[in-house]
Amino acid sequence: MVPEIRIIGIQGLPEVNPCDDLGGFIADAVTAQGVILDDGDVLVVAQKVVSKAEGRLVDLEDVTPSPLAVEIASLHDRDPRHTEVVLRECRRIVRMDRGVIIAETRHGFRCANAGVDASNAPGGDTVVLLPLDPDTSARRLAKRIKQTLGVEVAIIISDTFGRPWREGAVNVAIGVAGIHPMLDYRGLEDPQGRELRTTTIAVADELAAAAGLVMGKLDRVPAVLLKGCRFDRAEASISEVIRPAEHDLFR
Amino acid sequence: MVPEIRIIGIQGLPEVNPCDDLGGFIADAVTAQGVILDDGDVLVVAQKVVSKAEGRLVDLEDVTPSPLAVEIASLHDRDPRHTEVVLRECRRIVRMDRGVIIAETRHGFRCANAGVDASNAPGGDTVVLLPLDPDTSARRLAKRIKQTLGVEVAIIISDTFGRPWREGAVNVAIGVAGIHPMLDYRGLEDPQGRELRTTTIAVADELAAAAGLVMGKLDRVPAVLLKGCRFDRAEASISEVIRPAEHDLFR
Repeated sequence: MVPEIRIIGIQGLPEVNPCDDLGGFIADAVTAQGVILDDGDVLVVAQKVVSKAEGRLVDLEDVTPSPLAVEIASLHDRDPRHTEVVLRECRRIVRMDRGVIIAETRHGFRCANAGVDASNAPGGDTVVLLPLDPDTSARRLAKRIKQTLGVEVAIIISDTFGRPWREGAVNVAIGVAGIHPMLDYRGLEDPQGRELRTTTIAVADELAAAAGLVMGKLDRVPAVLLKGCRFDRAEASISEVIRPAEHDLFR
Repeated sequence: MVPEIRIIGIQGLPEVNPCDDLGGFIADAVTAQGVILDDGDVLVVAQKVVSKAEGRLVDLEDVTPSPLAVEIASLHDRDPRHTEVVLRECRRIVRMDRGVIIAETRHGFRCANAGVDASNAPGGDTVVLLPLDPDTSARRLAKRIKQTLGVEVAIIISDTFGRPWREGAVNVAIGVAGIHPMLDYRGLEDPQGRELRTTTIAVADELAAAAGLVMGKLDRVPAVLLKGCRFDRAEASISEVIRPAEHDLFR
């Protein structure tokens, strides 16, 4: 059998606002699009709509920047209020240069501006924060899809992050439900009967990257369905992907 | 129109040996599989078969390890001959610990063991090196596909690399032809008319990651076809993805 995966963009969701039933919106859009969900499908949902539905929005008019935020903003030609919000979302500053703050979020993600985003936000002065607990967001969506469409799908919440060593951002997983983010080949043998050396594939990140090809940035495709993927359906947390600094040979 | 991408594994290639016509093998396999290639399709080809076709194989019986390789191997419980080959492929050692050498290759890639791989190699004592110039490898394959099937496809040579900060390896692009590895959104506006902040997507890496979902590690799927992708068809080099250390805020 030829291995084939389909990546289908889900469109036509209404504008998402706080307290909206995002899972219901996605279920309706899937149905309206005539797509049939199957057990074992993967649904990748953009962080932005998840955060909006969860009310993770800050109106910059309500933000009083701290002296540190004012100082950083003036040194780096940034908005002091946006900078203040970024600092509040940080557990640690990784680096700060040329107007960019690379931060470690409370979840442990390392990304620009602690994931605080101004583009695609509802009002001109509103910024969008990462979900408080993206695994929980993913589980909530999985449950809602099960309720509405009767199908168990894996959910990945994704965001577009830069990375060390290589230019350009890629879509990565920041929350998971119904899928182990890793696919483990340890102990398996290659066709020559030799044990495989590359051991663990970050399959949730590969799925998020694949979805990123369809999400684009302008297309209003906030959710993407992947059919035919191989993954481990164990319940797990995205924290399994975050490598403790002391184990990181790649730094 | 619903945006949809298909990822189709190409199977049934014979075992690839030095000087084999890999492009011809792939064209034959595509045809045998009944898949129709279209202009603008993307073909992701695993580094391993490219390297084999290019004779980038080293029999460890022919390798005399240097004193440094012997020293490293004994400290880190490694094969001294394999270690010697890794050192020869390095431009710089990034880090060495717990038996792993993270190296910068002459191409500028930073990866474990400078990309030297022992699994899936033909003989028990043979290792596979990265192609000398993966962009050229990609261009050669694109030309051969054009000759045999009359279609202009983009080619990505891919390999599975670990990365900083996140556990697990992902498939990434190490060579390109007929595709710019970046997709540039700078200056474009979001649906609210605000300029997008995230600017450049490493589309070749997202395509490689998507292909990785079908390649797996055991399946003998050395090539993967992607249909329906959006990318910039400019000719470019994978070197555009390699971020100079002095510009790397993420380190």
